[in-house]
Amino acid sequence: MLNVIRSGRSEVSTADRGLAYGDGLFETIRMSGQRAVLRELHLDRMVSDAARLDIPVRRSDLDAAVTQAGIDHEPGYNGNDWVLKLILTRGQGGRGYRLPENCEPNLIVSASQMPPLPDGSGVIADVSRFPLTVNPWLAGIKTLNRLEQVMASREFTGKEFELIMRDAAGNLVEGTRTNLFVRLGNHWVTPPDGSLAVSGVMRRYLINCLRAGGHEVSEHNVPPSMLSSSGFRGLFLANSVIGIVPVRKMGDVDLPVDSGPETICDLLKTLE
Amino acid sequence: MLNVIRSGRSEVSTADRGLAYGDGLFETIRMSGQRAVLRELHLDRMVSDAARLDIPVRRSDLDAAVTQAGIDHEPGYNGNDWVLKLILTRGQGGRGYRLPENCEPNLIVSASQMPPLPDGSGVIADVSRFPLTVNPWLAGIKTLNRLEQVMASREFTGKEFELIMRDAAGNLVEGTRTNLFVRLGNHWVTPPDGSLAVSGVMRRYLINCLRAGGHEVSEHNVPPSMLSSSGFRGLFLANSVIGIVPVRKMGDVDLPVDSGPETICDLLKTLE
Repeated sequence: MLNVIRSGRSEVSTADRGLAYGDGLFETIRMSGQRAVLRELHLDRMVSDAARLDIPVRRSDLDAAVTQAGIDHEPGYNGNDWVLKLILTRGQGGRGYRLPENCEPNLIVSASQMPPLPDGSGVIADVSRFPLTVNPWLAGIKTLNRLEQVMASREFTGKEFELIMRDAAGNLVEGTRTNLFVRLGNHWVTPPDGSLAVSGVMRRYLINCLRAGGHEVSEHNVPPSMLSSSGFRGLFLANSVIGIVPVRKMGDVDLPVDSGPETICDLLKTLE
Repeated sequence: MLNVIRSGRSEVSTADRGLAYGDGLFETIRMSGQRAVLRELHLDRMVSDAARLDIPVRRSDLDAAVTQAGIDHEPGYNGNDWVLKLILTRGQGGRGYRLPENCEPNLIVSASQMPPLPDGSGVIADVSRFPLTVNPWLAGIKTLNRLEQVMASREFTGKEFELIMRDAAGNLVEGTRTNLFVRLGNHWVTPPDGSLAVSGVMRRYLINCLRAGGHEVSEHNVPPSMLSSSGFRGLFLANSVIGIVPVRKMGDVDLPVDSGPETICDLLKTLE
């Protein structure tokens, strides 16, 4: 049985495995009024990633929680978009790390204001010194084990919109809270699912949109040298709250901001 | 200021970063009456690892919390040893992953019974299929990001006392809740600090004891082939609750259980 902890209740047991071990996962959903943007993709992902972690949850329960959250919170945002966060934990019990015999997950629902959104002229990014390591069996899951992203975020100086994390080989993998897209000529590249700490819902949506629009998208590693290769036309950051934004400066290096973003922004207008 | 959440209060805010991101660390301490076994090593580690995570905490506050926990909980265990758990989180606040400007950590104190202890005749272990990945900048820290250990623990069949996790190269790194020691002739080997997900307090204690007793201890990788090498005399598992225990069977393979454990057990008697 899913135990839904709504905003009216602001505490969770100290014995929750989400706290003890980061034993759970989360979704951050942009809300437009009572409508969850990319709702199906978010719920699909939470259900399938919960299954990868052996956390039993019914999609219908998540669906009901999102609908109820829209009703509960929308009036507080005066017509502005807002952000819904769902944290799903394995609940309590089990001896140490071992799973409880009867798992009763907790779903913690909370709402917050939209963060400041960048305009379309592009943002400043830099490379984080903090290395990203991805367990291949957990790749892509938005789990509650996010200490690497927290530690990388210490490097924000106030100038950067995002810090991009690298794997041990030096490839650009993802931002602390965004996925990457590189435009090379008329071809798009994004790091492969299996290399990612978090495989975002917006990333999946954009891949589908680009392909539906006749663009070629390939998933492979992005070495930093790709940003100075001859066909390079732009670097983009994406997540489900901000949508997609071009990077106009990476560290001290100016990057081209070309017609690429408009192409994608046109696609995204259908979301808004 | 450190906010101590004692056993009388059993809830923590849903906004705690320990829950949201696993942004914190923990200690599991064996208690003998009101006395914390290896108290200095535990508090040293928590203070130094909290500093690595930029979580401000005074040793004197932790010290006072352990003393108070002894007074609060010891009467409930009728003279039996028990287990004290301290969870230190970064508290609330901060925009997303970014650190709060004023960090007010939470220390969550809880007590539990001792787990069943193996006798000295040795335990059964096996190798986990779940791979262990260690971020070099977080190596050894007993953080709240423990989903890998949770996932590996799904493989317990009821027969094994412990499952040993391997790195990408196949080296035996550590158990889900124990560190490893291998005896080769009169030489001891344990995987290096920098390769470990959790560098245990008991591991540090044993290295010091063995060296003080004139044994040679080296920290290097442990490939599985080391367990069938000519000088192999035993494999041992250690943590601060169980102490140290020999492995008599690894999967289907019987391992020697020789005079090694006595040597260490003699040292450990000074703890009890």
